[in-house]
Amino acid sequence: METILIEKIKFDTNGLIPAVVQDAETKEVLMMAWMNAESLRLTIEMGETRFWSRSRNELWNKGATSGNIQKVIEVRVDCDADTLLVLVNPAGPACHTGNQTCFYRELEKPL
Amino acid sequence: METILIEKIKFDTNGLIPAVVQDAETKEVLMMAWMNAESLRLTIEMGETRFWSRSRNELWNKGATSGNIQKVIEVRVDCDADTLLVLVNPAGPACHTGNQTCFYRELEKPL
Repeated sequence: METILIEKIKFDTNGLIPAVVQDAETKEVLMMAWMNAESLRLTIEMGETRFWSRSRNELWNKGATSGNIQKVIEVRVDCDADTLLVLVNPAGPACHTGNQTCFYRELEKPL
Repeated sequence: METILIEKIKFDTNGLIPAVVQDAETKEVLMMAWMNAESLRLTIEMGETRFWSRSRNELWNKGATSGNIQKVIEVRVDCDADTLLVLVNPAGPACHTGNQTCFYRELEKPL
């Protein structure tokens, strides 16, 4: 697979980039969260996901409280280098609701 | 699966919501793009993806030029109702580079 250098990653005007998290084995999309440069660096360094919490305005160590860490298998980058796809092995549910994925609801179809 | 009403969807301060697009069959994550209320309404109404192009500042009819439309199978909503996961059957590559997915590059691993 083609590779790309971390220096090429484009953060938005707030210094953030969206990171889609996918289960490397089941291929289920688990969640979408934001990373800043530091959380991306830590994600790679630690081999576990780190995000930037926009609501709490702080580094978010995924699984630090719940134990449901996400082991990083691979980080992919899209064509514009402004979105990440993080393939992980999750130790437990990604969602704070206890659901395996945050995308556990379907949009109600119109009549 | 639990359902959620379209009225509950939370758009950001720019009136946009990120939409992750996944192949309903292969489970490959194809792209991430943005929708405003109108493009979401059209996506549901037409059964094909419509986005909001932030660079061109206009409605983006995916596949209108390339023919690579994305038939919508299901729209899922995350726990915060501020991210969408759109399951599709794509007629061709999602990426303007000709790659099946926009996530065709891997972040170079540090030494």
